[in-house]
Amino acid sequence: MKFFQKEIHLKPYSRGFHLITKDVLNAIPELSQIKIGQIQVFIKHTSASLTINENADPTVRMDFESHFNKMIPENAPHYKHIFEGPDDMPAHIKASILDTSINIPISNGVINLGTWQGIYLCEHRNCGGSRKLVITAFGN
Amino acid sequence: MKFFQKEIHLKPYSRGFHLITKDVLNAIPELSQIKIGQIQVFIKHTSASLTINENADPTVRMDFESHFNKMIPENAPHYKHIFEGPDDMPAHIKASILDTSINIPISNGVINLGTWQGIYLCEHRNCGGSRKLVITAFGN
Amino acid sequence: MKFFQKEIHLKPYSRGFHLITKDVLNAIPELSQIKIGQIQVFIKHTSASLTINENADPTVRMDFESHFNKMIPENAPHYKHIFEGPDDMPAHIKASILDTSINIPISNGVINLGTWQGIYLCEHRNCGGSRKLVITAFGN
Repeated sequence: MKFFQKEIHLKPYSRGFHLITKDVLNAIPELSQIKIGQIQVFIKHTSASLTINENADPTVRMDFESHFNKMIPENAPHYKHIFEGPDDMPAHIKASILDTSINIPISNGVINLGTWQGIYLCEHRNCGGSRKLVITAFGN
Repeated sequence: MKFFQKEIHLKPYSRGFHLITKDVLNAIPELSQIKIGQIQVFIKHTSASLTINENADPTVRMDFESHFNKMIPENAPHYKHIFEGPDDMPAHIKASILDTSINIPISNGVINLGTWQGIYLCEHRNCGGSRKLVITAFGN
Repeated sequence: MKFFQKEIHLKPYSRGFHLITKDVLNAIPELSQIKIGQIQVFIKHTSASLTINENADPTVRMDFESHFNKMIPENAPHYKHIFEGPDDMPAHIKASILDTSINIPISNGVINLGTWQGIYLCEHRNCGGSRKLVITAFGN
């Protein structure tokens, strides 16, 4: 049984949805030692999040940003938590609707994603800065 | 410490929400050997997803379909990713709002779901075809 | 390799979003024996859920309640599952949009949350009563 864990800082990303599959995999080369297992990627923030989605066409990521901005608008009259700026409370809600962590199976030393799947960083703030991830891989 | 992993193809399901708890459990009978552990079900697609919800009344699943179609409509004017048909971009967004994978505790050789909980396949495409799942169970 | 599992009953909470990080940690002191690992918190219900979000300002939790009530309203004309009351079908949808379980990395005997992260119980029913959680921690 093997357990590997890394904590990394991503470079700052602009508001929107970004593919970070390579950043995650580069951080944990020990994954190749695991035959059957799982990798967890966890983001230590409440105004940015993670999800798995389409890895090819950039317009998919643009449409995510447009749709989430409509579904969870800024300056909604029912928000009370407004002192950190109009992008803050929507960022918290988006983060919980998407995910704080994702889990992916490991098979024969590689992550077992579908052909069209990639890991997204979902940056919900205008100036979120560098985000911290905890990456944990385990298996036998 | 035990690790079991299976990759299965579900039969094609129509657009909507479907109970697949039995399909998952039938695929991994080795689960009965685990005293304390966890099972992960992971879907290798970006336009279908998984969730856990009510396992009894079929109208719950119908209401999920109606509500998600209203919350993430087809042909929204802000979509740029439209070349795969009007059901495609909404399918990607629905998949990320629901889940690409679910994790359930294992206790004494069985999955420890609540009385009313079942595993749903959420098929967001009109003709999604057969979907692939990776099922990983581990524990001691 | 260590596996610990506890099943607990939370006290009944009112409809809304509540911080339960301490309730979870108090239930599983064995977590301190794990150097690298993961904790899963799983809720055995389909009308209450879990998420991770901001742990400081109570207005964030109030805004979650307001926003989810707008995004998934009671008495929507498309609901068919209405015999358990107007708060029931929205509760099911909210539970799947948020999460049935959360996974948090363990590092050096403690959960590795960000500074501002806490575990929320999301009680979607008017009178949900006491909710059951299964807490599983594992690692080496």
